[in-house]
Amino acid sequence: MTPVRTVSPILVVGTGLLGTSVALGLRSQGVDVLLNDASPVALGLAADYGAGRIAPATSATAAAALDDAEANTPKIVVVCVPPDVAGQVVMEQLTAWPDAIVTDVTSVKAAPLDYVREHGGDLRRYLGSHPMAGRETGGPLAGRANLFLGRPWVITSHAETSVQALQEIEGLALDLGATVVNMDAEAHDSAVALISHVPQLVSSVMAAQLLNDDAGASALAGGGLRDVTRIAASDPTMWNQILAANGPRVATILRDVASDITELATALEDMSVPGARRIVADHMIAGNQGVARIPGKHGISQTFATFTVMIDDAPGQLAKLFSDIGEVEVNVEELQIEHAPGANMGLAQISVLPESLTTIMDELRNRDWKVAE
Amino acid sequence: MTPVRTVSPILVVGTGLLGTSVALGLRSQGVDVLLNDASPVALGLAADYGAGRIAPATSATAAAALDDAEANTPKIVVVCVPPDVAGQVVMEQLTAWPDAIVTDVTSVKAAPLDYVREHGGDLRRYLGSHPMAGRETGGPLAGRANLFLGRPWVITSHAETSVQALQEIEGLALDLGATVVNMDAEAHDSAVALISHVPQLVSSVMAAQLLNDDAGASALAGGGLRDVTRIAASDPTMWNQILAANGPRVATILRDVASDITELATALEDMSVPGARRIVADHMIAGNQGVARIPGKHGISQTFATFTVMIDDAPGQLAKLFSDIGEVEVNVEELQIEHAPGANMGLAQISVLPESLTTIMDELRNRDWKVAE
Repeated sequence: MTPVRTVSPILVVGTGLLGTSVALGLRSQGVDVLLNDASPVALGLAADYGAGRIAPATSATAAAALDDAEANTPKIVVVCVPPDVAGQVVMEQLTAWPDAIVTDVTSVKAAPLDYVREHGGDLRRYLGSHPMAGRETGGPLAGRANLFLGRPWVITSHAETSVQALQEIEGLALDLGATVVNMDAEAHDSAVALISHVPQLVSSVMAAQLLNDDAGASALAGGGLRDVTRIAASDPTMWNQILAANGPRVATILRDVASDITELATALEDMSVPGARRIVADHMIAGNQGVARIPGKHGISQTFATFTVMIDDAPGQLAKLFSDIGEVEVNVEELQIEHAPGANMGLAQISVLPESLTTIMDELRNRDWKVAE
Repeated sequence: MTPVRTVSPILVVGTGLLGTSVALGLRSQGVDVLLNDASPVALGLAADYGAGRIAPATSATAAAALDDAEANTPKIVVVCVPPDVAGQVVMEQLTAWPDAIVTDVTSVKAAPLDYVREHGGDLRRYLGSHPMAGRETGGPLAGRANLFLGRPWVITSHAETSVQALQEIEGLALDLGATVVNMDAEAHDSAVALISHVPQLVSSVMAAQLLNDDAGASALAGGGLRDVTRIAASDPTMWNQILAANGPRVATILRDVASDITELATALEDMSVPGARRIVADHMIAGNQGVARIPGKHGISQTFATFTVMIDDAPGQLAKLFSDIGEVEVNVEELQIEHAPGANMGLAQISVLPESLTTIMDELRNRDWKVAE
């Protein structure tokens, strides 16, 4: 059993999805969590939901007047408010709690740091974070204690960051089950421009083209279009705040995207021109290589080797397959079962590391399974 | 019980994913299916897989010489070959079987029709189809009898199409569980440019930007980027054939996409300019409206309930999980493993039918697994 690193109490300011998830996660480790939110409804919901107790004092001075002053004076303040007010709320909390470490969890990191620096905040006690986790729904009721489990949690320390501040925020992220990634604020903001902000806008622009569909083409949509446009359903107001804090970095990558798409359009206008097919192929090959850089799961990931096992639709066959796979000392990365109603069999698609492919296929063949690559 | 509309035998030419799926689907309805493929391996696999029997004759003349001539003379030929040879193979089949209705299932429809017209093929007996169904993997073993179930099946009849030809192909699509959509070839090709070909290239171009990631940003990727770039893993050779047959229509939409992205880039370069925030918001609102036009569900299938099992990264733990799942008498629909680098645990996401959720979660808890919804 790992001991809990986070020292009670901590204060969560902003009880939306992220704030409530931080609070629930820490509560599940036995940490005493104080809650605050500008909206009494969100605050009450989060408290009812078990995320912590409503903070009786909003400053060290007010807390000092209480009987249980120490129990109501946070060691760490986690600011979980929208991006456009993050810098301001961080400043307020640094002032309100002169002995607390303050962090925020907004998705852009240079802007709040600049704000705190410009307003003379105590930079030894502030460092930004960005847990790379979210859900499609928001609000306190969407909060989950395990939201950060196994997810990267970027911590953007800077020259003035004290070792104690860094260690306390790292401890909090680790207590929530996250993996700590250290980056400076500028590198972080460039990274999220590439992996989050540009994909959001590309998805929005693609989805917007469907407004030109007068012929009912959208009704024919398949999984590809759905995937590409899923995040186009995101909230424009929240994204306006995020993008406003990272505009130039996003714009640079968008220019590259527009230039690539224009080059493709030119090639496609006449595919009989020598070289045109090559241009289209090169862009798609670059896409193959780019998507292969994304680690982990991705439908059927390119980094894994996949094979298929045929299963009779008889009872107990799937159980036998699971048990046989269990005996083979190979890490299964992904396993997908398909029941084919027409055929009298099901198929299990199994992904493993490429170097394990022969072993597991041979072992399953030895156990009388029909196996195909 | 609906009677089967398709009259035996039918001939499937090309036993890849689509051809094998057509064959399996018709076989499950009791239709006699003849198979042919340029690759003896693909043909043998499809036949072994239960998709039908290898055609003993490849023309009406050859079939006439057989004892069971009628049983080996197809009423319908379904051409399921790559787009670049579709027109040619349709022509060959029209000539080989002078009494058969011929259709093809390639994803572009004006080009094969033009080819048949230019080569003097019998247009009363040919009409194109495009079943809007597919999978990420190809080949006969990827074939599924239910691949077309509930999916749109576009039929592109034209001025010369005979009523009988139309009815027979509609009957075949209905027998496979598909929903028939009638369009002319030009309207179809414009529709797929918008809902399939442009999304493919947009996804490829987005993924290609990750090749400029020198800072390890890709490691922070979340679900949004994964979704947008999933189809960037598609096969460049197959797509080159598709795009070559629909280039100008795709190019027109790509120009609109590039123009929208350029407008966004300009706005984002300085969000303090009056009107800049409005431009960004308007594009995102258009994206909201566009994605709302796509019918049905997005993302992880809504028909399954998913829960998470935490696995220690110790040897044998995954094997134990598989073996324990094998003991529980619940059909696992999908199982996905995530290894969180850095964290000392992995997560298995397991999908089951909603009514089985409580059972399997309880059974796994009883076996000391940490389980969460």
